[in-house]
Amino acid sequence: MSFNELRKDYLLNRWVVIATSRSRRPTDFTKKQPSQTTTAASTANCPMEPGNEHMTPPAVLVYLKKGNTIQKTKDTNNHRHKNWLIRVVPNLFPAFTPPQQNTAFPKTPRNPNLAPAIGHHEVIIETPHHNQHPSDAPITQLTLTVNACLDRLRTLSKKPYVKYVSIFRNHGLEAGASLSHAHSQLIATPFIPTIVKEEIDASNAYHKKHNRCAYCAIIQDERKTPRFITENPHFITIAPYASINPMEYWILPKKHQTTPLQMTKNETETLAKTLKQTLNALKELVNDPPYNYGFHLTLDKHAHYHWHLEVYPHLAIWAGFEKSTGMYINTMTPETAAESLSNAIST
Amino acid sequence: MSFNELRKDYLLNRWVVIATSRSRRPTDFTKKQPSQTTTAASTANCPMEPGNEHMTPPAVLVYLKKGNTIQKTKDTNNHRHKNWLIRVVPNLFPAFTPPQQNTAFPKTPRNPNLAPAIGHHEVIIETPHHNQHPSDAPITQLTLTVNACLDRLRTLSKKPYVKYVSIFRNHGLEAGASLSHAHSQLIATPFIPTIVKEEIDASNAYHKKHNRCAYCAIIQDERKTPRFITENPHFITIAPYASINPMEYWILPKKHQTTPLQMTKNETETLAKTLKQTLNALKELVNDPPYNYGFHLTLDKHAHYHWHLEVYPHLAIWAGFEKSTGMYINTMTPETAAESLSNAIST
Repeated sequence: MSFNELRKDYLLNRWVVIATSRSRRPTDFTKKQPSQTTTAASTANCPMEPGNEHMTPPAVLVYLKKGNTIQKTKDTNNHRHKNWLIRVVPNLFPAFTPPQQNTAFPKTPRNPNLAPAIGHHEVIIETPHHNQHPSDAPITQLTLTVNACLDRLRTLSKKPYVKYVSIFRNHGLEAGASLSHAHSQLIATPFIPTIVKEEIDASNAYHKKHNRCAYCAIIQDERKTPRFITENPHFITIAPYASINPMEYWILPKKHQTTPLQMTKNETETLAKTLKQTLNALKELVNDPPYNYGFHLTLDKHAHYHWHLEVYPHLAIWAGFEKSTGMYINTMTPETAAESLSNAIST
Repeated sequence: MSFNELRKDYLLNRWVVIATSRSRRPTDFTKKQPSQTTTAASTANCPMEPGNEHMTPPAVLVYLKKGNTIQKTKDTNNHRHKNWLIRVVPNLFPAFTPPQQNTAFPKTPRNPNLAPAIGHHEVIIETPHHNQHPSDAPITQLTLTVNACLDRLRTLSKKPYVKYVSIFRNHGLEAGASLSHAHSQLIATPFIPTIVKEEIDASNAYHKKHNRCAYCAIIQDERKTPRFITENPHFITIAPYASINPMEYWILPKKHQTTPLQMTKNETETLAKTLKQTLNALKELVNDPPYNYGFHLTLDKHAHYHWHLEVYPHLAIWAGFEKSTGMYINTMTPETAAESLSNAIST
C-alpha cells in the first residue's frame, strides 16, 4: 500500500497532494478547442496595434529606436508616439488607481476591512507585432520588455503610497488574458499582498534562525534533485518541491538579490534568454498552453528575501476542494515536469 | 476621483478589489461555447449510471427505497445493489487513501514538508438520473444527498487519522468536473486545511475577545445590508462582503452549529430546499454556469466555529495577479450579486 505524497511549500503554509493517478481519470465532457491565441486575430480594433495608439491613454513610457540606441520618452495628451518598440500605458479598466495631485485620500470610515484601491495598473505592450509572444520574440525585444518592467518598477516603487509592485503576464484566454496582443501587466498596491508577505516573513524568520537566505538554500539543495531543470551563469530554473500546477517552474537569480532592480545589464539579457528558452520548451511540450507568470520581489532592501519569477502553466482546474480548503491536488510530480522541460530545452 | 474598494474577508487575511469597470473590458478572443453539462451525454460508459454499478468499487453506502422508508446498506466485493437512490463509492482515482488494516503508517523521513496523504476520497452519486442536478432535483432526492454526505461525515470523522472532512461539488467542465452525472465528492484529510484552519483560529480569537460567535455576528449584521439574499426559519443566504467570485454566496444556519451533523431532520430538508432555490436562481440568471460549492465545518465541538456552505460560481478567471499575490479582483459587487439573486428567487 503506497500513499500519495502531501507536500508543503518551502515557505508558505500551503499543502499539495501529488496524485499522479488522477491524471488518468476519464471524462465524458466534449473536448474544448484550445484557445487560438497565436492565430491571426483581427488587429483593426486591437488597441495595442501600431496605428491604434489613440485607442489607449497616453503612454507613461515609450521606447523608440534611434539609430543603435533606445530613446525613452512618453506620450502627452495631444501626442502619441509612433514607430515604438515598447509602450507602457495605464490600463483603461484599472483595478488600482493613483491619487490625483492635490487631492486628499478619500475619507473612509475606520473600517479595518476596507481600504481605497490606491495604486497603479499598467499594461506593458511588449512588441508592435501582435503575436510576438516571449517564446518566439527576438532576445533583443524580450530584453526591452524586461527593461520596461524594471523602469516602471523603479519609478512606481518610489511613490509613497506604493508598497508593492506585481509584474505578471497572462497568456491565452483560459489564463485570463482578454486581449491576444503580446502584453504584460503591472499592478502597484498600497500594501504587500498576502502570498508575498507570507514568503517574506518566513524568509526573514529562516534568516534569523540559520543566518542565510532561504532561497539561496533552496537553490543549493534543489540543484542536486530531479527538480533541477536548467541553469546558466546567472539563473537557475527548477520545478518547485510542492508545485500546485502541472509543469510549474520558477526562475531564480543565483546571486542573492532582493529585487530585479539589482540585475546588471548582462543579467537582464540572460533573464530574457532564460524566459524565452523555458517558455519555448513549455510551448513545444504542451502545444502552446495558457499560462501565467509573476515576479515575486520586495521593495524593502533590508528584507532577507530573494526575488524570483514563478511560471504557472494552466493545465488543470482548481475545483471545489482547492477553493474551499486552500489545499491543492496536482496530478503531475514536479520531478516529471522538470525532466520533461529539461529534455525539451536540450533538444 | 473615486477609488475602487479593497475589501478584506470577515476572518481570513484575504483582500479583494471590487472593480466593476473591469467587467466592461473588451476581448478579441473567440467566445467559447458554454459547456454542455445538461445536454444528454452518452450514458453507456458512465460509471454512475444504474446498470453500471460494476464499473465502480463496491459502494460504502447505498440508499435503497423500501416501501415508504429508506434502507441504508452497502455493496460487497461480489454484490452491487441495484435500484438504488443514492450510492457513495470510493473514488477510483483517489487523492487521499485510507491506511490498510494492520498496516503501519509508512515510515517517512522526518521531513516537516512531507506527509502521507492518508484519508478518504469518495464520490456521492446523487441520483440514478444522469442530469438531475440540485437546481432541478426533487427536494426528497436532494435531501437524501445531504443525508448521505452527513452519514459519511459522521462515519469518517470518527476515524483516528481523520482531522477534517471536505464535502464539495464541482458542476461543469470549467469548474473541474470530469464526469457530468450529478455527483458530489468528499475528501477526508489528516489535518485541518489552511483556509478552514485560518477561519477557525480567527473565529476562536473573535470569541475570546467578544464572547460571541463571529459568524452569529456576521449573520446579525449582514441581514441589514444589501448583501442579504434570502432567509427561511433555519438558514440565511448572503453575498459575502469580500466576495472573490462574481455571484458568490454563502448559506449559513441561523442557529449556532459547529457542524452540519447538528442539523435536525427538518433543518436538513430546509438546507436542501435552500440549496435548490438558490442554485436554481443562479442557473436562471447566468444560463447554468459552472460552479463549485464546499461545506466549511469543524470536527472539534469545542471550537467557536459556525459551519456554512460557500457557493463559488465560475464566472471569471483568476490570473497572474491573483495566483502570484493571493490578492483578488472581482468585477461584480456582492451587493449587485445579492440583488440579482434575490430578485431571481422572488420571481
